[in-house]
Amino acid sequence: MVSASLAVTPLLVTLNDKILKIGCRPDKPREFDAIESRDNPVIIAGFGRVGQVVARILRTQKIPFTALEANFEQVDFVRKYGNQIYFGDASRLDLLHAAGADRAKIFVLAIDDVEASLKTAQMVKTHYPHLKIYARSRNRMHSYQLLDLGVTVLMRETFLSSLELARDVLVGLGQTTAEADEIARRFRIHDEQLLDRQRAVRHDEEQLIATARQARDELERLFEQDRTAVKQEDKA
Amino acid sequence: MVSASLAVTPLLVTLNDKILKIGCRPDKPREFDAIESRDNPVIIAGFGRVGQVVARILRTQKIPFTALEANFEQVDFVRKYGNQIYFGDASRLDLLHAAGADRAKIFVLAIDDVEASLKTAQMVKTHYPHLKIYARSRNRMHSYQLLDLGVTVLMRETFLSSLELARDVLVGLGQTTAEADEIARRFRIHDEQLLDRQRAVRHDEEQLIATARQARDELERLFEQDRTAVKQEDKA
Repeated sequence: MVSASLAVTPLLVTLNDKILKIGCRPDKPREFDAIESRDNPVIIAGFGRVGQVVARILRTQKIPFTALEANFEQVDFVRKYGNQIYFGDASRLDLLHAAGADRAKIFVLAIDDVEASLKTAQMVKTHYPHLKIYARSRNRMHSYQLLDLGVTVLMRETFLSSLELARDVLVGLGQTTAEADEIARRFRIHDEQLLDRQRAVRHDEEQLIATARQARDELERLFEQDRTAVKQEDKA
Repeated sequence: MVSASLAVTPLLVTLNDKILKIGCRPDKPREFDAIESRDNPVIIAGFGRVGQVVARILRTQKIPFTALEANFEQVDFVRKYGNQIYFGDASRLDLLHAAGADRAKIFVLAIDDVEASLKTAQMVKTHYPHLKIYARSRNRMHSYQLLDLGVTVLMRETFLSSLELARDVLVGLGQTTAEADEIARRFRIHDEQLLDRQRAVRHDEEQLIATARQARDELERLFEQDRTAVKQEDKA
């Protein structure tokens, strides 16, 4: 019964402080208040670790957003911290419409689940082609799939923190912060170029492996050249 | 029988190309070759998305490392791309010893599973207190727990990519890249300070919520002041 009603009626509900205070539980009916958010320029689909940071930064700039989150437990957690949040499955066309996808400018695809992310990207691309998608991706393969769907701005979710961790390790081993920053910067450029090149050959697994090995050797040569250049500068 | 032998003998095995070529399967006995890696300055525990990036960057700098990975499927995937990898549970004392934890300088804790990460951190802190730990953390709570164990260098795994995504959204909405970079930079400093403050009150949930709300308002005021300052400079 519950799932049937979910399929018919867009369940878009504010979990604001007032509702929290009167102790409303997830299984009770909720106020439908999509209208007030229809003209928000940004829709954030997925309100986990990534979506929350994006939302918090937008909030500091007084940029209104409509957040969609499918996982009710997650919503229950988030609302305790005072955020405004709406409930629903972002890949549902009726919910996207209710959330104002026809008027928004930017769609932040911050869903962690790969399949749900791709389904939502496909739906947005098909029905709201004017929306610019900014996507969180899980890994290289998810990135390839998003790119195939026409999503052009994407960020692998653990990539930048990994780079920073590696940079800190280099400093811990005695490199200067400037050297370590430069190595991380070059590696990022290299790896993002490699992602593009690998995407072209990803359906041929053997070639993909060869590309990765070739790239590893190429990167090593690149850094070797960098180090030689740095040494020469030191001598001058 | 298999688990009994695992408990007695450190199972530290090279999954190199040679073994791959002769078609060795995970359930067959493997060569024990820990000795060659005993003097590596860096141990990387967890060879997923984070550990791999750290390893690749170290490799470009010719810094040898010993990688430990518990998940065999993950290893099977990784070895196809030409990396060197060792197999084992990083929280096991005998394996840490075999991996050269007594001689290494740096321990990169890149395990994704929170419980396994904490167990390993505890083991390293207790038995190899000289090792400097650089940790990947899942979220704020995992960060608090690592800090409580004495881990001082840590990076939330999705935090920096979230910041970058938010920065890109701000640019997409019309801010300059310089403005967006500055907002992201300030937010990072603010949020890392907030993490420290929240850690102190985390056992009191109500206070934690109040702190988060207070911080949200504080951050908004901070950005408001920043914007005013920027406007005044424009006038001058």
